[in-house]
Amino acid sequence: MPNQEHWVLTFVCPDKPGIVHAISGAVVQAQGNITESKQFTSESNHFFMRLQIESSISKSEFETVIQEIAEAYQMEWQLDVVGRRMKTLVLASKAAHCLNDMLFRQLSGQLPIEVEAVLANHPDLKSLAEFYKTPFEHHSIESANDKHNFEKRIEELIEQKEIELIVLARYMQILSPEFCARHAGKIINIHHSFLPGFKGANPYAQAHQRGVKLIGATAHFVTEDLDEGPIIEQNVDRVTHEESKQKLVRIGQDIESRTLAQAVSWFAEHRVLVDGSRTIVFS
Amino acid sequence: MPNQEHWVLTFVCPDKPGIVHAISGAVVQAQGNITESKQFTSESNHFFMRLQIESSISKSEFETVIQEIAEAYQMEWQLDVVGRRMKTLVLASKAAHCLNDMLFRQLSGQLPIEVEAVLANHPDLKSLAEFYKTPFEHHSIESANDKHNFEKRIEELIEQKEIELIVLARYMQILSPEFCARHAGKIINIHHSFLPGFKGANPYAQAHQRGVKLIGATAHFVTEDLDEGPIIEQNVDRVTHEESKQKLVRIGQDIESRTLAQAVSWFAEHRVLVDGSRTIVFS
Amino acid sequence: MPNQEHWVLTFVCPDKPGIVHAISGAVVQAQGNITESKQFTSESNHFFMRLQIESSISKSEFETVIQEIAEAYQMEWQLDVVGRRMKTLVLASKAAHCLNDMLFRQLSGQLPIEVEAVLANHPDLKSLAEFYKTPFEHHSIESANDKHNFEKRIEELIEQKEIELIVLARYMQILSPEFCARHAGKIINIHHSFLPGFKGANPYAQAHQRGVKLIGATAHFVTEDLDEGPIIEQNVDRVTHEESKQKLVRIGQDIESRTLAQAVSWFAEHRVLVDGSRTIVFS
Amino acid sequence: MPNQEHWVLTFVCPDKPGIVHAISGAVVQAQGNITESKQFTSESNHFFMRLQIESSISKSEFETVIQEIAEAYQMEWQLDVVGRRMKTLVLASKAAHCLNDMLFRQLSGQLPIEVEAVLANHPDLKSLAEFYKTPFEHHSIESANDKHNFEKRIEELIEQKEIELIVLARYMQILSPEFCARHAGKIINIHHSFLPGFKGANPYAQAHQRGVKLIGATAHFVTEDLDEGPIIEQNVDRVTHEESKQKLVRIGQDIESRTLAQAVSWFAEHRVLVDGSRTIVFS
Repeated sequence: MPNQEHWVLTFVCPDKPGIVHAISGAVVQAQGNITESKQFTSESNHFFMRLQIESSISKSEFETVIQEIAEAYQMEWQLDVVGRRMKTLVLASKAAHCLNDMLFRQLSGQLPIEVEAVLANHPDLKSLAEFYKTPFEHHSIESANDKHNFEKRIEELIEQKEIELIVLARYMQILSPEFCARHAGKIINIHHSFLPGFKGANPYAQAHQRGVKLIGATAHFVTEDLDEGPIIEQNVDRVTHEESKQKLVRIGQDIESRTLAQAVSWFAEHRVLVDGSRTIVFS
Repeated sequence: MPNQEHWVLTFVCPDKPGIVHAISGAVVQAQGNITESKQFTSESNHFFMRLQIESSISKSEFETVIQEIAEAYQMEWQLDVVGRRMKTLVLASKAAHCLNDMLFRQLSGQLPIEVEAVLANHPDLKSLAEFYKTPFEHHSIESANDKHNFEKRIEELIEQKEIELIVLARYMQILSPEFCARHAGKIINIHHSFLPGFKGANPYAQAHQRGVKLIGATAHFVTEDLDEGPIIEQNVDRVTHEESKQKLVRIGQDIESRTLAQAVSWFAEHRVLVDGSRTIVFS
Repeated sequence: MPNQEHWVLTFVCPDKPGIVHAISGAVVQAQGNITESKQFTSESNHFFMRLQIESSISKSEFETVIQEIAEAYQMEWQLDVVGRRMKTLVLASKAAHCLNDMLFRQLSGQLPIEVEAVLANHPDLKSLAEFYKTPFEHHSIESANDKHNFEKRIEELIEQKEIELIVLARYMQILSPEFCARHAGKIINIHHSFLPGFKGANPYAQAHQRGVKLIGATAHFVTEDLDEGPIIEQNVDRVTHEESKQKLVRIGQDIESRTLAQAVSWFAEHRVLVDGSRTIVFS
Repeated sequence: MPNQEHWVLTFVCPDKPGIVHAISGAVVQAQGNITESKQFTSESNHFFMRLQIESSISKSEFETVIQEIAEAYQMEWQLDVVGRRMKTLVLASKAAHCLNDMLFRQLSGQLPIEVEAVLANHPDLKSLAEFYKTPFEHHSIESANDKHNFEKRIEELIEQKEIELIVLARYMQILSPEFCARHAGKIINIHHSFLPGFKGANPYAQAHQRGVKLIGATAHFVTEDLDEGPIIEQNVDRVTHEESKQKLVRIGQDIESRTLAQAVSWFAEHRVLVDGSRTIVFS
């Protein structure tokens, strides 16, 4: 028996009858077996699907089979190997919690990513990156020009390393709208979150001031509207009147690490599809 | 255009290539459109699927189409109308919390069931059932003979009312193994649950004694092994050293109500399939 | 031995050394025994305390003892009997879930309140109130004058029934700033809540549009700033991209009921103290 | 003004009137100010208290003042400096998740402990310990004699380093009953936990087999009854039928890390007091 490969196929197309029949026909034609399948029809009348398929035909043969159906149904699609580590660039500043968590999970096999480089505007996280044998670069950002050069350096790394995912692991700088637009759907940010939401500076102080009983974190795609992109994952933890502002920050860091890791993991497994301002998460 | 009906089809069969292609072919043949689809291949190599399909053909025509494929793939299958209220019998004793919660949710349209009767071994819940205009019967169980007659009365009601689901809403009697076997996969029970688990009498006292920090509830199918059937849903809430035994019981009641309602809701929507000692929950 | 009474004493005063010594001295003097005690010093340097005390002296004798210390330490204080049911007025509109939950919990002894009346601007909840033998009044609000009269009727009931707590159980009308100010710290509202927060109309639609993964509820005191009063309790539940707007609303209702009941229960037990824009919850 | 020291005082004694008055009198005498105070009277009629006190008198002076009251009320008591890092010994085997989490939190100031040494029966975690500049020793355990020597080495380290806390960070060996008894109330273990509980080998396989919907972890003191000591903290996460056994293990590891860190943090802050088979957690 030939070697079996394990594929993950994702696609989106306008909803109409016959899609599943067509795509499952392609799988039969490829002598494949569907091992996992999730689908969703959105209110915008788009059909989203994610399939895992075992098959022994080559990638290019499989692509030829899919391409035919894709044209008939106007599918946008992607085919990848299950478990392939996604090439990832991490942007960071000073805070270590999210980076530590990601690198540990990468090493222990929980996160199917390969962090190709950490790019930071502060030097603090150098030794952490080195412990995990991950390239680390530090470039200060003091001026608009520094910022421009920083983004230029990101672009170089993206090209050199064939980066597929950019993770903002508490990167405290604002990326330019052009950059965000160019890499839309590829940049994941982690953001503290509260009920109700607080606008403006120092949200932990505001949350403390209102005496919130829950604090949380939201992992989302970055769009040109800062902190307003499609939500991938959210979590909360309970707090009481006894927690100081500092303690709220600490609790927040824990939730941020967990929530970011979850979102990155789903993304790297092609489980996150974008539907306008929403995400479809085939978790 | 003819009237569209909204169907829910569930089936299980041995896993092999081509199932999805075949069943989606049947949907195309029935001029149907798949509006929701979930599938799962278990480690026991069985393929489980739940589909919601809009189609304008009649139920019997649709059944004929499915039957053909079902035979080819050795499917056990079921076809129903989405949103049809499932005919339900509730067994209760004295505790009101689960019954109150279910009847309120039925009335407010959150639970797609029709409680045809409440059968209790105590009279306490009569006025609650009456407020919700639900037939209520009370038969004391003082002897083995009473118990036998009680089960006989349940069987009569099941037949007369064409009962599809039996809910034990804190029914504090043990059903006979024969009864459980006869209605396997149709009886849902709610059970308090703790980490770690406690065996024997008075689990809340044991939990209090060990100083547990979480208490929970498990909704499960009833099998001949008491409290050991396939798990449908579980929830927990936090407690502290300050909660008395009585308070633990109260908190437990809240979780029981919520967890039972969730399990019943999923069952009534044909979202719970049984795979040996496990459930597949297409929630 | 004389009959023991079980007291709950709460107070707030400027923080300085000796308060606990003084108040515990008063308890010794009253031949009392402290059965529960919680305290907190806020960042605003106020000292909050809640004590449960068993003692056989009369209320007036006890008050005399406390009054002396209260003056020395500038305490605002309150003495009540543990477990006394707090006289409560519920304002409602059409939605039944919060009212049903409260009345059931009152009846089953989980909520130490006595709902003296339900006042609604719609007739829908009449039979529910009647089942629980709770006086129900309905007055339509179609004009500013109706509104004025409605608030006048509330004031009459507050006076007649000696109301101590006003619960807005999904009451969909805005109370006048004067009313809110007059009963500050006595009105509890339940509000849906999301991460991030959404401003403006139809928040469930906005939440659905952004694809939130958590929806929640906040129980808070009503102040003149609508939906901005001190937070008492918050909860969330998980949702996915599959939940429709209608389903989000349903899930939200469940959280609202639970969260409101928890807040009311703590308030009725004198466990909620206000510290400016925050609450101290001695849960 | 003399330097203020911040003290934490914990004690337990038989409950009787006057304790709080007496201890707060001692604080007044020590010119101290109570900044945090928690107390609890258990059903076994013991009174537990934890106080944080700012005072400028010396430790020995303060101890003299307390000692007098302690004798009168038969108190077992402990006085420490708030925030002092507790000298900790970690026992580990191969699994890295709990150790990584603890060392990161220690470094980032979230966990008030000083890990004096990691003692393991496998060499795998050496480089992780070294990155965090923590002494690491590895001694294989292949025989009863090895085990005896391993415990002897633990005892040596406890004495040399003045160890106050022993954390079993997924240490997969059973400690001798004598060792457990000798260090009762000083050894914290982390244990996977399920609803319902599973006895015997391979609990994740059992949990998977029953199709549990929640998996959790319990941090507890180690007693001679394996996995049965007083519970300090518990957490759960949701799982579905889709999670493989391997995935359950991963999710379990995350909860284990969080739960162990929380328990250790509370212990190091003298927030965990033992009441027979229960804990009082003044969190």
